[in-house]
Amino acid sequence: MVEKGMLIVLSGPSGVGKGTVRKAMLREGSLNHFKYSVSMTTREKRPGEQDGVDYFFRTRAQFEEQIAQGGMLEYAQYVDNYYGTPLKYVQETLDSGWDVFLEIEVNGAMQVRQKMPDGVFIFLTPPDLKSLRHRITGRGSEDQATIDKRMAKAREEIKMMSNYDYAVVNDQVPRAVARINQIVQSEHLRVPRVIDSYRKMIGDK
Amino acid sequence: MVEKGMLIVLSGPSGVGKGTVRKAMLREGSLNHFKYSVSMTTREKRPGEQDGVDYFFRTRAQFEEQIAQGGMLEYAQYVDNYYGTPLKYVQETLDSGWDVFLEIEVNGAMQVRQKMPDGVFIFLTPPDLKSLRHRITGRGSEDQATIDKRMAKAREEIKMMSNYDYAVVNDQVPRAVARINQIVQSEHLRVPRVIDSYRKMIGDK
Repeated sequence: MVEKGMLIVLSGPSGVGKGTVRKAMLREGSLNHFKYSVSMTTREKRPGEQDGVDYFFRTRAQFEEQIAQGGMLEYAQYVDNYYGTPLKYVQETLDSGWDVFLEIEVNGAMQVRQKMPDGVFIFLTPPDLKSLRHRITGRGSEDQATIDKRMAKAREEIKMMSNYDYAVVNDQVPRAVARINQIVQSEHLRVPRVIDSYRKMIGDK
Repeated sequence: MVEKGMLIVLSGPSGVGKGTVRKAMLREGSLNHFKYSVSMTTREKRPGEQDGVDYFFRTRAQFEEQIAQGGMLEYAQYVDNYYGTPLKYVQETLDSGWDVFLEIEVNGAMQVRQKMPDGVFIFLTPPDLKSLRHRITGRGSEDQATIDKRMAKAREEIKMMSNYDYAVVNDQVPRAVARINQIVQSEHLRVPRVIDSYRKMIGDK
């Protein structure tokens, strides 16, 4: 019997840099031996994006059929588009012994927490709200009302941190990546994850 | 207000090498910024041992007075001698913001778990029972009955692993030390330990 893989969920407020950290992790991912679960979306493909790499790009009808069939581990709508995580890939990969890495929005992370409470839930935080504001306004194209709304949302999301296992500060991407790698390796030593193999060692199973 | 330190408890079966790992950790302890809590004992000082470094060497009467006054975080008797951890040093050091490291027997670790459930409890395990048997018999001077008794005790203690947070294999001392350091750093990122500082950041406290 193969030991089951571990689900690692990286989430955090909008604008905190989840995608950048995720990409940095994938670049040096050989350390971790995990599989990244590609999200599904109905939004338009942007220049340079690849189907099956950045997202699975699907029509609204296709996405809603997946939902109806119970095929989404989590999903949400943002600006009239669906984003979500197909359940099948995650389950099959965990069953085959690989760790699975998800980088998703906070609402999605809470859906995953309910369905897979054994996962490791990591909340990426801004070093402080000032830099978060800078990141949110830094794109340059948003009006004040949009910015205020995003700030209020970010405050809400930071409050959501209490639902996570770990808080990792995204002060510098390589440092955030190192902390996440440390958490993953350390979680693999947690007793509930390893005790069965020890029970076998002393002949109790 | 100073953030409270974290209690780290290293324990495991007799003969697994707890003391060796602890000494290796203290040698390169600058990484961890923790204080080691020196145990108290009534046994005879051995050649090369220093009072206050290896143990606080006390008389039986002195030790029993500490117990009577509720001054021991944990204690036990082995071969007619008391061994234990004075409570005061641990509490004061945690209150001043330092992490405290204890290396103790499994019975003592369970006493600490009841009194300080927020601690991080690490169980050091032999790579397999064969090497544990080798370590137990390797001292050369024990008879078969003693060896069998120790083996049975080790099996019992491995079963006790379920009361710990982490299991670290002592295959090679430097690797075990690296794993423990990783656990300590990772535990410092756990949400229940850091959420108050984040609540302050967004003005909720």
